[in-house]
Amino acid sequence: MKNCLKILFVLSVFLLPANAFASKIVKDSITSRILGCDMPFLVYLPDGFNPEDKTVKYPVLYLLHGLSDDCFAWTRKGTMREVADRLMRSGESRKMVIVMPQAGTSDIVGTNCGYFNVPDWNYEDFFFKEFMPAVEAKYNVQSDRRHRALSGLSMGGGGTVSYAQRHTNLFCAAYAMSAWLDEPESPREKYRSDKEFYTRNSVFELSPLRLLRNADEKQAEEWRSVRWFLDCGDDDFLLQCNLDFYMAMREKHIPAELRVRDGWHFWDYWHTALYTMLPFVSRCFGE
Amino acid sequence: MKNCLKILFVLSVFLLPANAFASKIVKDSITSRILGCDMPFLVYLPDGFNPEDKTVKYPVLYLLHGLSDDCFAWTRKGTMREVADRLMRSGESRKMVIVMPQAGTSDIVGTNCGYFNVPDWNYEDFFFKEFMPAVEAKYNVQSDRRHRALSGLSMGGGGTVSYAQRHTNLFCAAYAMSAWLDEPESPREKYRSDKEFYTRNSVFELSPLRLLRNADEKQAEEWRSVRWFLDCGDDDFLLQCNLDFYMAMREKHIPAELRVRDGWHFWDYWHTALYTMLPFVSRCFGE
Amino acid sequence: MKNCLKILFVLSVFLLPANAFASKIVKDSITSRILGCDMPFLVYLPDGFNPEDKTVKYPVLYLLHGLSDDCFAWTRKGTMREVADRLMRSGESRKMVIVMPQAGTSDIVGTNCGYFNVPDWNYEDFFFKEFMPAVEAKYNVQSDRRHRALSGLSMGGGGTVSYAQRHTNLFCAAYAMSAWLDEPESPREKYRSDKEFYTRNSVFELSPLRLLRNADEKQAEEWRSVRWFLDCGDDDFLLQCNLDFYMAMREKHIPAELRVRDGWHFWDYWHTALYTMLPFVSRCFGE
Amino acid sequence: MKNCLKILFVLSVFLLPANAFASKIVKDSITSRILGCDMPFLVYLPDGFNPEDKTVKYPVLYLLHGLSDDCFAWTRKGTMREVADRLMRSGESRKMVIVMPQAGTSDIVGTNCGYFNVPDWNYEDFFFKEFMPAVEAKYNVQSDRRHRALSGLSMGGGGTVSYAQRHTNLFCAAYAMSAWLDEPESPREKYRSDKEFYTRNSVFELSPLRLLRNADEKQAEEWRSVRWFLDCGDDDFLLQCNLDFYMAMREKHIPAELRVRDGWHFWDYWHTALYTMLPFVSRCFGE
Repeated sequence: MKNCLKILFVLSVFLLPANAFASKIVKDSITSRILGCDMPFLVYLPDGFNPEDKTVKYPVLYLLHGLSDDCFAWTRKGTMREVADRLMRSGESRKMVIVMPQAGTSDIVGTNCGYFNVPDWNYEDFFFKEFMPAVEAKYNVQSDRRHRALSGLSMGGGGTVSYAQRHTNLFCAAYAMSAWLDEPESPREKYRSDKEFYTRNSVFELSPLRLLRNADEKQAEEWRSVRWFLDCGDDDFLLQCNLDFYMAMREKHIPAELRVRDGWHFWDYWHTALYTMLPFVSRCFGE
Repeated sequence: MKNCLKILFVLSVFLLPANAFASKIVKDSITSRILGCDMPFLVYLPDGFNPEDKTVKYPVLYLLHGLSDDCFAWTRKGTMREVADRLMRSGESRKMVIVMPQAGTSDIVGTNCGYFNVPDWNYEDFFFKEFMPAVEAKYNVQSDRRHRALSGLSMGGGGTVSYAQRHTNLFCAAYAMSAWLDEPESPREKYRSDKEFYTRNSVFELSPLRLLRNADEKQAEEWRSVRWFLDCGDDDFLLQCNLDFYMAMREKHIPAELRVRDGWHFWDYWHTALYTMLPFVSRCFGE
Repeated sequence: MKNCLKILFVLSVFLLPANAFASKIVKDSITSRILGCDMPFLVYLPDGFNPEDKTVKYPVLYLLHGLSDDCFAWTRKGTMREVADRLMRSGESRKMVIVMPQAGTSDIVGTNCGYFNVPDWNYEDFFFKEFMPAVEAKYNVQSDRRHRALSGLSMGGGGTVSYAQRHTNLFCAAYAMSAWLDEPESPREKYRSDKEFYTRNSVFELSPLRLLRNADEKQAEEWRSVRWFLDCGDDDFLLQCNLDFYMAMREKHIPAELRVRDGWHFWDYWHTALYTMLPFVSRCFGE
Repeated sequence: MKNCLKILFVLSVFLLPANAFASKIVKDSITSRILGCDMPFLVYLPDGFNPEDKTVKYPVLYLLHGLSDDCFAWTRKGTMREVADRLMRSGESRKMVIVMPQAGTSDIVGTNCGYFNVPDWNYEDFFFKEFMPAVEAKYNVQSDRRHRALSGLSMGGGGTVSYAQRHTNLFCAAYAMSAWLDEPESPREKYRSDKEFYTRNSVFELSPLRLLRNADEKQAEEWRSVRWFLDCGDDDFLLQCNLDFYMAMREKHIPAELRVRDGWHFWDYWHTALYTMLPFVSRCFGE
């Protein structure tokens, strides 16, 4: 049955300029000494990517998933590949390598969630000391701040902002979707599982919103070197902290973009955000 | 791990007006005497749909899949549910029942493909004599032309236009995406499988483009009672027949809409088309 | 020279279904006893509007200008006619009468600015007791709450929200663009001119944001019968009061829409807002 | 009255990062020996443009008006300045100099219309031999093909395509809106005025569509070095020639973009096209 469609496609070769965009999604993993386990991740390799040719290097985007997802979420639920293909083919997005890490492991019970360090699970150390160097050595990536960006949704949106705040020298752009940017109080008692307590507590301790509000002018000046973008639905339960964060950026004269579109905490909001995010980080690369 | 997210959601209830949109996707099937087998289908039931309350009736949309897909394609690959939820919640789309039939059965070898009658597989008879009556009796559907619309992609876009052309009294609107609207020549010899030959041959015989070009003014007048919409990517191999069809509609003074957006024969084109299609058919209902 | 284009258009009649959309912009005025002067206004009459035929009635939208503009602003700077024509022709907007009042008179020195009552210039009384009744009697308007909506920009966005707050029984929808929704402090001394003092002071006294925050549940319940929409640029100096207003609506469980798009306090923001506003109020009519 | 707004703006300086985008529209003119008269034109100079600093050079876009307009049309009817400001500020468009020439003079009776040479009015000679060199010497423009683009509407859309076809070595991109791309027959008799005859006849003689269809592979290869974009409304009377042109480009394997949006031959179509055109030519510059 599929042959019929194939034939249509074969015929189409004679009718239109080639529109094949031969991107690839690669499943890979890295053995972490810091975490004591293997950590899986996905990589989007754009059309024309040639692992053999080390002379052609690409900008890199780290694309972070949310609380209850894993490294497959952006491709399976967010269908990021089709959007990336379309935008790179039209030129609206630059060709880039897109790395989708995984924040936790579903099979290990314990404190393994989120993008920050928690007791016995130093994920942030892993990310910067093991993961980023290994990935960037393996794939043809331009390993400099001007060609490295962050994006993510929900908990991954919080990770995006927090990593860019505390590693300003590593990223030129941060695009946060429906981001978890604050936890106003320390969770008083432990949740039903340690995981939940530690995840929530790490957001409380590293709250990007509080960090911003307490920042002095020197810190603000540093943050002005990053390009910031906040995108959150008008029915999202995380809207307030995004608005607060944006207005605090304005008060400190740190340029940032804000978009509030129709929607809540759901996948089609993030899917459609890709159409804004990829061109945005593309414009930031190389500035 | 998911409890943490649940708690966030529970908390959110106190922070925002309820945004729960309790739509349902129901998997159902019907035993066909005409086809001699069970035919599966999916139904999208909007928020507030109550099978017990027969006094509230909804408009109905038939949403057709393409050549190499089945009745699950629109939900699994097209994520139609999220778009429908969002648009119905905002009011951009009316609440409606969306029926996703299946054009063939993957397990039966033979002439079982496409939306038209082929030898030993009278699918079109099944659709209008068995399927539509049964579905509309079972679900709370407004069974009249003014509240019944068609949409579909590729082969299903061809089915959309052809059904609306030849059953004008049944549908008020037809929105065709990347539609297969013509087969200029009869396939001379049988393809590797009978299926392919009969599918292609049925498009040749019922070619919506040829039917349109040969139509007299009486036929054209009938077609003016349907609202037509063609949406096809500028890199799609089926673009030419869509442009030809639209210009032929214009020549015969049959109002129609045309959109050509960036893209080819791929899922994100159809996914994003939902944002135009659902409001369009909503405006057509009840006119 | 223009004949050549005319000929092209004449030829085109044979090539396409008629796309003429014969809307009209009418300049009119009303003599006000309350204000003691003539007040000009514009009216957009949709295609098909027939002043003789009193049996066909249309919904009505009041479209308010900003601080330094007059009743011509929406047509001259906002090119609202072309957008209305396009959207009504496609069906995205319902056909409606759009009334563009004028908030002040440029030739009278004194307290004549804004949409509220100020000493010796009871504009709000004029609007509800003289202007609305006269306009709705003269043009074929459905004079009921379910077919009457408000929209406006900046000071007119504030007027939109305030009128809808305090005349809930008159309007079904309020769409405010870049709205001036609050004046936190009473202007301590008079400004260089009385006008400025009184305008600003009237916003201070009727602050929609303070009224909302102080409202009890009975008041909130009343406001739930109106459909609210706030649309403000991320670089607009009035963004904060729009965000505050929206979050206060959410806290009181009054459904509202919020959009923050790229832009500041400028005409193309309001021009492009028309593409969202007209379909929104159209959906509200008749609910 | 305006002081009040001014004060609001002054206050806003403390609240947000500077959003001033100090672009300029300059009215200029050039004395043409070829045409024997002065020819006016407008120039958009982006924020930061400093006529004194000859070390900073900008890409240049020529933006052509239509049949019944002049060099003021794009600013007055198309409000191009606001769109350019917004897009350059966000980075979606590169900063560039935008030159708006005038195709004719309203005061001279005779054959003075269109972008091509007609008897006694060698406009195309003027454009390439006098106008372009003079403008590019006066303003800080990067005078090379990789930083020079064309766009225009209707007759100016035809000029855009024709100039790019016959001066391939001068332009890297051509974005044609609702373009007049063909005149199938020679006008048999003279129109009421010579102007109309000569204008129409020049399009007949230089028909971009016929030139394309008759091109050999060597010519096609040359055209592949230009980036082409066609944007035309589905209700435009010029749609057919745009579709024909695009499909002919596809047949000759010359990459091009096509968009068909809702609309006809009217200003808001061209105004909204600016949001696609400016980012498109920006991506073409420097490739």
